[in-house]
Amino acid sequence: MENRKILTGEKIVVKVGKLNIGGDNPPVLIAGPCAVESKKQVIDTALALKEIGVNILRGGAFKPRTSPYSFQGLGLKGLEYLREAGEKAGLPIVTELMDEKNLDAVAEYADIIQIGSRNMYNYPLLKTIGEIDKPILLKRGMSATIKEWIMAAEYIATFGNKKIILCERGIRTFQNYTRNTLDLAAVPIMQKETGLPVVVDPSHGTGIRELILPMSKAALACGANGLMIEVHTDPKCALSDGFQSITPEEYRKVVEDVKKYFL
Amino acid sequence: MENRKILTGEKIVVKVGKLNIGGDNPPVLIAGPCAVESKKQVIDTALALKEIGVNILRGGAFKPRTSPYSFQGLGLKGLEYLREAGEKAGLPIVTELMDEKNLDAVAEYADIIQIGSRNMYNYPLLKTIGEIDKPILLKRGMSATIKEWIMAAEYIATFGNKKIILCERGIRTFQNYTRNTLDLAAVPIMQKETGLPVVVDPSHGTGIRELILPMSKAALACGANGLMIEVHTDPKCALSDGFQSITPEEYRKVVEDVKKYFL
Amino acid sequence: MENRKILTGEKIVVKVGKLNIGGDNPPVLIAGPCAVESKKQVIDTALALKEIGVNILRGGAFKPRTSPYSFQGLGLKGLEYLREAGEKAGLPIVTELMDEKNLDAVAEYADIIQIGSRNMYNYPLLKTIGEIDKPILLKRGMSATIKEWIMAAEYIATFGNKKIILCERGIRTFQNYTRNTLDLAAVPIMQKETGLPVVVDPSHGTGIRELILPMSKAALACGANGLMIEVHTDPKCALSDGFQSITPEEYRKVVEDVKKYFL
Amino acid sequence: MENRKILTGEKIVVKVGKLNIGGDNPPVLIAGPCAVESKKQVIDTALALKEIGVNILRGGAFKPRTSPYSFQGLGLKGLEYLREAGEKAGLPIVTELMDEKNLDAVAEYADIIQIGSRNMYNYPLLKTIGEIDKPILLKRGMSATIKEWIMAAEYIATFGNKKIILCERGIRTFQNYTRNTLDLAAVPIMQKETGLPVVVDPSHGTGIRELILPMSKAALACGANGLMIEVHTDPKCALSDGFQSITPEEYRKVVEDVKKYFL
Repeated sequence: MENRKILTGEKIVVKVGKLNIGGDNPPVLIAGPCAVESKKQVIDTALALKEIGVNILRGGAFKPRTSPYSFQGLGLKGLEYLREAGEKAGLPIVTELMDEKNLDAVAEYADIIQIGSRNMYNYPLLKTIGEIDKPILLKRGMSATIKEWIMAAEYIATFGNKKIILCERGIRTFQNYTRNTLDLAAVPIMQKETGLPVVVDPSHGTGIRELILPMSKAALACGANGLMIEVHTDPKCALSDGFQSITPEEYRKVVEDVKKYFL
Repeated sequence: MENRKILTGEKIVVKVGKLNIGGDNPPVLIAGPCAVESKKQVIDTALALKEIGVNILRGGAFKPRTSPYSFQGLGLKGLEYLREAGEKAGLPIVTELMDEKNLDAVAEYADIIQIGSRNMYNYPLLKTIGEIDKPILLKRGMSATIKEWIMAAEYIATFGNKKIILCERGIRTFQNYTRNTLDLAAVPIMQKETGLPVVVDPSHGTGIRELILPMSKAALACGANGLMIEVHTDPKCALSDGFQSITPEEYRKVVEDVKKYFL
Repeated sequence: MENRKILTGEKIVVKVGKLNIGGDNPPVLIAGPCAVESKKQVIDTALALKEIGVNILRGGAFKPRTSPYSFQGLGLKGLEYLREAGEKAGLPIVTELMDEKNLDAVAEYADIIQIGSRNMYNYPLLKTIGEIDKPILLKRGMSATIKEWIMAAEYIATFGNKKIILCERGIRTFQNYTRNTLDLAAVPIMQKETGLPVVVDPSHGTGIRELILPMSKAALACGANGLMIEVHTDPKCALSDGFQSITPEEYRKVVEDVKKYFL
Repeated sequence: MENRKILTGEKIVVKVGKLNIGGDNPPVLIAGPCAVESKKQVIDTALALKEIGVNILRGGAFKPRTSPYSFQGLGLKGLEYLREAGEKAGLPIVTELMDEKNLDAVAEYADIIQIGSRNMYNYPLLKTIGEIDKPILLKRGMSATIKEWIMAAEYIATFGNKKIILCERGIRTFQNYTRNTLDLAAVPIMQKETGLPVVVDPSHGTGIRELILPMSKAALACGANGLMIEVHTDPKCALSDGFQSITPEEYRKVVEDVKKYFL
């Protein structure tokens, strides 16, 4: 494995407010809609999720979409709604940064900055967030090797920011039954190689609602430090990724069922 | 999904002696060396495994090897040793059939006939074992889609034999840190689609000794009906796949640790 | 690259009747229907192809199909029709052997025995055809690495038969626009590594009729020793792979257009 | 295929100075070092390439590297050297833009702006270059589907800039003999789907010096509108990708050999 200077495997615990992520701390639950669509939607969702036991609220304000004609997110408005929802529910928030231009706004509103799969190789962006003092959620690139993912985290760390949470979200393979192939072996591998916490996103990792529960259990059983799941109050009407979103009630069931894997 | 006539999702429990595999039955533990190398080796291993709680002894007498110059297995001699080891330890045995020519011998000695990854598309062989009354362990082809794997099982079933245990053993992807990418989502998918029991082979699925424990836990957590693990009394001297084999003592630790996932 | 004893890179020319395949000989044209469906179909096709300049007639009598409920080929009857067509048109024939049971029949009727993608890892079958004196067309496994493909040829050669023609037919990747991803770099690689002739099958390699001409040109330009193309007098009614078959008239156009690449 | 508004397949010819790329125009030759390393290196290379018949000089000033500790390019200094080399040799230049911050500098110095594989999904960057009036060389993402690549071009086009040259540079597959798997079928596919010119990069597409000539021939034979090849006066000392670079003398041989495919 390529030379590393910072992330050599020593355990790193990332603090988000009072929450400790990684090490021997219990897994964290991150949930929320794929995209922030309206103030009401995200506040309702946040309150429901808080009540179920979620630790961190997720929601996209800037959305990387394959088509320029798809819904691209509410932008700054979305950030405001998300923040208001987080405050009302008493939850820290995580949202994606796609572009250095929006760094100040995202850094102001978010408690954790997400770097999405499509930007894992965006080295200028990695350097930029390496220079700020804010936890980062670094998703794996859709065809990133273990080494490339490690080195992407090293980019952030070498510029000074070691508050990195990794997120396995499935890789692209020939297998087309699921949207991606969830590579759960990456959980213990990345924990050992980098020392960083690793959470798993079974929503993107499978793209199939029914697989979220079994894959959540599997993720926790092999040591994941958390789960990130897409929850929408009305999946059929979601403007993005509705087919892989579950309702708050379905999510409640997932949380109850995975509790026994909080070992 | 392509038209199926037999494996439509109705739960099927496969009986091997007194053992029931699939449905709500507890997961089964299948273990043993990659290849039968000597009488002493396989008997010693069998007795050690029995004592740890293994349910089925595995071992290869006929080995499909990438190179014609690699050890190809002991053949009939290997079958005899394996059977003797199984009898001494009171364990049913599973071994691979590569070739119709050896069907009678393998069917006589083995309690379960394994069809390996390289033969998942070998339709004449699938038809042949579809006509006998003996449990089959059908490994997934290394680049088989879910649909192809289902239809391979359907080949066996349509010729009359529904005693099929599926085995997820990892798929071939660009990811080269592990030998294969263990596709655990295939466990709930194949159970739902075919009704058959699905066991997981984390030895081939990762090719890395240290990953066997976490991936075993993950497999059981998402509902696997069993685990198949390579155990060798002296992995460094194994004639085949030693790098991914563990010792009986390491295996004992795995079994103890996964017991809590026998839910 | 793994140790080899026979196929070390020295140029091998395979003779089929008066035809010389490989080395500096001009590329060969292999064409015919995916499956032999009737006597009339295959004779009509053979005569049309002969007139266009084809060197070898292809046709499947035994068909490996993903579903047990799909048309499986005419079997021995198909062999007879194919042979009759070859004789009427004055063309040697190539057809697939799936199973050792049919070795004698296939070896009697065919001038070249094809080992299909699904059997590239079928080592007992490779050994069997290694012991006979008949040219072999060895297709690449759908997810075979270069090394695995080389060693499959080495299996045949080490049992005595060096009359091997390799066939690149595309590999399985995430890319789903085409049926497979034609890996043309494999042509010069396999020629250099093994010394054997390499032909290309753009029909399976793309699965798209319109891509057969450009990919045929590309194959010859990078040095392929021949082309194998599916031709059917009525593609829409083909019992197998009609979507990737072209008519004799379309094939005539391909042959005319690729002639300038016979360098 | 997803809805498109701009790139519907109508032929688009991209002008770069007096050069016309695409349509029925002869293929263009793009060559130069992976990275600009010194003024002398890039000027010497440019003059040698001009003499051989190159149409466009390439060279990286900003380099996306997997490791933060690898050579990252000379930055603005590199742009200056590249421009000076281009002027001295009378060649237009293409160089990569990784980051909106450097847009003005890159747009000032370069005749064509390259968007590299790692930025194909960088939608904010695609929008930005969609708003300027400068030819773009859009490389395919390393695991981009045909659809995703088309939509990336559509992002640029929908913001106003249709001067897009596509570049196939290999995709990531299980096949590890070559660095990437050159997907030549993408050439006719992308030409037909988008109407845009498509050039091929056999250097990244194979990562193996000896494969550059046969893959260049294949690319042109299937209709590529140009070739982009890494040339370095001293490949062994190259600071980046030396193993896949060829010398000007080797390049001269390639150009001579591919001329017959300028059909």
